[in-house]
Amino acid sequence: MIKGKFITLEGGEGVGKTTNMSFLKDYLSLHGIPVILTREPGGTRLAEHIRTLLLESSDEVFTDQAELLLLFAARAQHLKQVIEPALHAGSWVICDRFTDATYAYQGGGRNMSAQAIQWLENFVQGNLRPDLTFLFDAPVEIGLKRARHRSSLDRIESETLAFFEQVRRAYLLQAKLQPERIKVIKSDQALIDVQSEITRFLHPFVFNDHHS
Amino acid sequence: MIKGKFITLEGGEGVGKTTNMSFLKDYLSLHGIPVILTREPGGTRLAEHIRTLLLESSDEVFTDQAELLLLFAARAQHLKQVIEPALHAGSWVICDRFTDATYAYQGGGRNMSAQAIQWLENFVQGNLRPDLTFLFDAPVEIGLKRARHRSSLDRIESETLAFFEQVRRAYLLQAKLQPERIKVIKSDQALIDVQSEITRFLHPFVFNDHHS
Repeated sequence: MIKGKFITLEGGEGVGKTTNMSFLKDYLSLHGIPVILTREPGGTRLAEHIRTLLLESSDEVFTDQAELLLLFAARAQHLKQVIEPALHAGSWVICDRFTDATYAYQGGGRNMSAQAIQWLENFVQGNLRPDLTFLFDAPVEIGLKRARHRSSLDRIESETLAFFEQVRRAYLLQAKLQPERIKVIKSDQALIDVQSEITRFLHPFVFNDHHS
Repeated sequence: MIKGKFITLEGGEGVGKTTNMSFLKDYLSLHGIPVILTREPGGTRLAEHIRTLLLESSDEVFTDQAELLLLFAARAQHLKQVIEPALHAGSWVICDRFTDATYAYQGGGRNMSAQAIQWLENFVQGNLRPDLTFLFDAPVEIGLKRARHRSSLDRIESETLAFFEQVRRAYLLQAKLQPERIKVIKSDQALIDVQSEITRFLHPFVFNDHHS
């Protein structure tokens, strides 16, 4: 039986997922909740190998279909080896990107069919879905400027502005369709306001469910 | 438009695919047919990376779902980068293992659902299917003895006898369901007899279709 909560952080490039992930971890730890941090694609040694294949710039580029299947292969591995065992053991899991990112990047950005993504989601995840998702949202130019300032670009970060606009639109559409699970947080506001919104949405999970 | 023919070689471990692949190539070349040889999983630089991940022995083993998705990711890449361009250019393609192997190893050997394999087959291949498939068949013990004599074992070759019996049964079932495409060739007979069967099945493709 799943006892922990599964929280995912989503958003485009440079929206502050990393900072907020540390904040979330500290907040949950302060409340005595065991928590692990992980990321996608990746999270296991083999899944991180897949991540490297996906993100390295190379003469040979994966076709859209191969990219989509690799993402779900890494996800299947990550779920069985890391996420599900942790949730069953009562730990909470905070994951930097998950299947909403696939709908946004491969669905929105690359125009892959949502039905195909949905089939793969059901095949790999069964009934497992995040309990709570924070979608950090900022205008594309702002996020990209931050991401590009931070480090050299991987294959995905090198995409066009139009690509990232489609990603953002797809993310916001997902949030509109699933408002109970996906909370949009404007990340171009003061950090203290971002964090107060995070705790507000987290509150019922921490106090009703965990300490019930 | 596809102008070349797509021929696949299937079978368990140690059934002589490599020897017969050379024979096929020489036979087609003698008849003036351009031909490329390739293999699965693999066939492109990135798909060969996936092959390495799949076959290396490691502490972390891929789950059945991840293994299945990786195979189709490699296949998607191989089709778009190598097989389809060659067929469109009029070359024939001879491939050492293809989707029948997935039905046999992952479907038969690992009990993965045939519907899932079929969905992935349609997603990745569209309408493309081999024109002709040779299934080399031999009792499991004979093939394994040859394979194990040849080299050290990869992760798949290290499976149990029961696994390979299931693989063989699944292969033979496929051949029974698609007798027009899949030709079973007993590989525990004299090589000269194996090769005369190969040329007999190849004959109509070489003389009716290619030189029409």
